[in-house]
Amino acid sequence: MRTQVAIIGAGPAGLVLSQLLHLAGISSVVLEVRDRAYVESRVRAGVLEQGSVDLLRACGLGARLDREGMPHEGINLQFAGARHRVPVTALTGRSITVYGQQEVVKDAIAARLADGGDVRFSVSDVRLSGLAASPRVAFVENGREALLECDFVAGCDGFHGVSRSFVPDGVLTTYERTYPFAWLGILAEAPPSTEELIYCHSPRGFALVSMRSPSISRLYLQVAPDEPLSEWSDSRVWDELQQRLAMPGWELAEGVVLDKGITAMRSLVTEPLQWKRLFLAGDAVHIVPPTGAKGMNLALADVRLLGTALASWYTTGSRALLDSYSSDCLWRVWRAQHFSWWMTSMLHKFPDHDPYEEKLQLSQLRYLTTSESYARSLSENYVGLP
Amino acid sequence: MRTQVAIIGAGPAGLVLSQLLHLAGISSVVLEVRDRAYVESRVRAGVLEQGSVDLLRACGLGARLDREGMPHEGINLQFAGARHRVPVTALTGRSITVYGQQEVVKDAIAARLADGGDVRFSVSDVRLSGLAASPRVAFVENGREALLECDFVAGCDGFHGVSRSFVPDGVLTTYERTYPFAWLGILAEAPPSTEELIYCHSPRGFALVSMRSPSISRLYLQVAPDEPLSEWSDSRVWDELQQRLAMPGWELAEGVVLDKGITAMRSLVTEPLQWKRLFLAGDAVHIVPPTGAKGMNLALADVRLLGTALASWYTTGSRALLDSYSSDCLWRVWRAQHFSWWMTSMLHKFPDHDPYEEKLQLSQLRYLTTSESYARSLSENYVGLP
Repeated sequence: MRTQVAIIGAGPAGLVLSQLLHLAGISSVVLEVRDRAYVESRVRAGVLEQGSVDLLRACGLGARLDREGMPHEGINLQFAGARHRVPVTALTGRSITVYGQQEVVKDAIAARLADGGDVRFSVSDVRLSGLAASPRVAFVENGREALLECDFVAGCDGFHGVSRSFVPDGVLTTYERTYPFAWLGILAEAPPSTEELIYCHSPRGFALVSMRSPSISRLYLQVAPDEPLSEWSDSRVWDELQQRLAMPGWELAEGVVLDKGITAMRSLVTEPLQWKRLFLAGDAVHIVPPTGAKGMNLALADVRLLGTALASWYTTGSRALLDSYSSDCLWRVWRAQHFSWWMTSMLHKFPDHDPYEEKLQLSQLRYLTTSESYARSLSENYVGLP
Repeated sequence: MRTQVAIIGAGPAGLVLSQLLHLAGISSVVLEVRDRAYVESRVRAGVLEQGSVDLLRACGLGARLDREGMPHEGINLQFAGARHRVPVTALTGRSITVYGQQEVVKDAIAARLADGGDVRFSVSDVRLSGLAASPRVAFVENGREALLECDFVAGCDGFHGVSRSFVPDGVLTTYERTYPFAWLGILAEAPPSTEELIYCHSPRGFALVSMRSPSISRLYLQVAPDEPLSEWSDSRVWDELQQRLAMPGWELAEGVVLDKGITAMRSLVTEPLQWKRLFLAGDAVHIVPPTGAKGMNLALADVRLLGTALASWYTTGSRALLDSYSSDCLWRVWRAQHFSWWMTSMLHKFPDHDPYEEKLQLSQLRYLTTSESYARSLSENYVGLP
C-alpha cells in the first residue's frame, strides 16, 4: 500500500492536514488507534481563533461551524467581587468562535470520507521506519499486519502518540513545566449562564464558565492535581462553582452533568518539530495549559504551515518550506506558551503563593481592566496573532 | 518648639513634601539623621517619570532639572544578540528624564534653606509620641534633647527609618519578596556609551547601561546576592560588563570608577500608609527592585497626595483626603510593584530557572519587540501612569 503522506492520528491536526493535502491534490492515509465514535465524542477544547476559523472555512470545513459556532467578541474577567468585560474584538478587530473540538473532528471526518479519503480507525502497533529516505508505516488493522509506504510521515498523534518516539535519541529537546493544580471540567445540560466566557479568579481558586451550544454549558474548576475524580460528586462541583462565581444579581444555571473529567495543567515543547521525513504537529510536540485556549489553535496553525510546505514540495520540488517548518512553527508555539503561562499565572490560586504574590496578581488583574494597551495585548493573543 | 508638620527624613520624599507645604503656607521642620554632605552625595535612583518632572517644576524645583536633566524618549532592550529600541514617547506621548536622586535632594535643600525653611541634619534618637491627638517628636540635636510639637508627622525616613516603628503592633501589614540576586552598580567617569538606557538580558545575567551626565556613566550588573563587593575589582566589573553587553559595532567606554556598591533586590509594601496623625511615604513603606526605576517616583507620588491632603485639611478642615491618603497611594504602589516584578522577572537570569523558563523569557522579550500594544503597555508604566 502506498500514499504520498502517512498521517498518524485523527485529531484536528491530522484530519485537517489530510483535508488540506486533498485540496492540493496530494494523497494521504490517516491512521488512528481509537475508534471513530471515540474521537467524535471526546470532549476537549472549544475556542477557535479567528485564524483557525478562516483556515477551516478555506478548506471547506466551515459550513456547520458557520451555522452552529458561537462567535464571541469579548470575555469576562471576575475578581475581587466584580466582573469586568474585555472587549477583545473592539480592541483587535478579530473574534473567537466557540465550537467544540469534537465538532471540528466530526466535520473533517465526514468531509474526508465523502471525498473518498482514507481514514482508518482502530489500528494498532503503529511503527515508523525508513524516515531518512523512504518512510514506511507498519501497523495492525483488523488483526492483520499492514504496511504503508509513503514520501512523508506527519506525526499528529498527540501527547501520548508514538510518532515522536521514532526519532533517534539526542535529536529532540523537550522543555516542560507542570503546574501545581489541575482542572476539573464538566459538560452540563444547562443553558449558558452568560453570553461570553467568564474567567474567574477567586480566593477558593480559579473557575471558568464556558459553553458548547445554547443548551450545553462547559464549566471548569481549579482543583488539586492529585484529587481523585471520585471525590467530586456532581453536587460538590455545583456547590463549588456557585461559591467561586457568586455575583449579586447573577445566577449560575445548573443541570444534568453529561461528562466530568480532570485535566492536568502542563506546558511542554519538543524541538525541533521535524526529523528527516517525519514532521510532527499539534499535541505530539507541544502542550499548553487550557487557560489560554491555545491547544487546538496551535495544532491547526502547525498543519496549515505543513500543508503549504508539502504542497510546495510536490509542486515545485523545493524543500525550502519543509526545511523551515519547525522554526516557522516555533515562534507561535513559544508565543502561545508565554500567553498560556500569563493567563494561568494571573488567574489561578497558587498553593505556594505568599500574600505578596496574591496582591501582585490582583494588581495585574486591576491593570488589565483599566489599561487599554494591556487589555489589547492580552486580546491580540487571545484571538490569535496573525 | 512647634510646627504644623514634622517631617522625618531629608530624602526626596521629605524635602519635596516640605517644599509643597511651604508653597501652601504650611510650616514644617525636617529632621534628618545623616549630615547634609551625605544626603547630597549618596548615589541612588536617576530616572524621573514625566509626572515627577511636572511635580518638581510645579513646586519650583525645576530650574536646574530643566537645564541638566537628560530627557529620554526611548529605551533599548538587548537580548539574544540583538538590540531593540522601545520608543516610549512615541507610544505614550510622555517621556522620562535622567536626573540623579541626589540632584533632586540638592535642589530641594537649597530651595528650602533659601526660603528660611527648617531642615536639621545630624539629629539622632528620633522618637514619636502622641500620634493619636497631639504628636510630639523628641530627638537629640548637637548632643542636647529637643522636642518638636506638631499637628501631623510625615514619616519619610526610608526603609531603615524609625517612624514606622511607632505604629502599634498589629496595625500594619507587610508584604514582601526577595529576589535571588543583587545589583552591583558603578558610577564611572566615562561618557555614556549610548544615548538611551540599555536593559540587557544575557546568559551571563542582566546588565544596565545608564548615565548621570554627558561625562558620567552609571552601570549595573546582576550579581549573586551574597557576593562581597571586595570580590569585584574595577577590572572585573568592566570585563563582565563588556562580556554581557558586547554588540558588533558598538563599544562600551570605560573610565575611572567613582562609586561602587551592591543593592539588594527586594520588594516590600507596608499597609496602610497612615496611622492616626502619622503619615508614611516613600521607602519607609514600600520598596521596589530598581529595574523599573520606580522608587523615587513612587515617593514623589506619595508626597504629592500627602501635600494636597494636608493643604485641604488646613484650608477647609476636611479630613476626607487625609483619610483616603493610604488607599489613594496604594493602587499606584501595587501597580509599580507589579511593573517592577514584570521588568525584573523578564530581564534577569534566575538561578533556579529551568530551560523551559529561559525560553519563556525570550518569548516574552521577542513579543515585546514585535507587539505595539505590549510595548505600549510596558512604556506607559515606564513613563508613569497618570
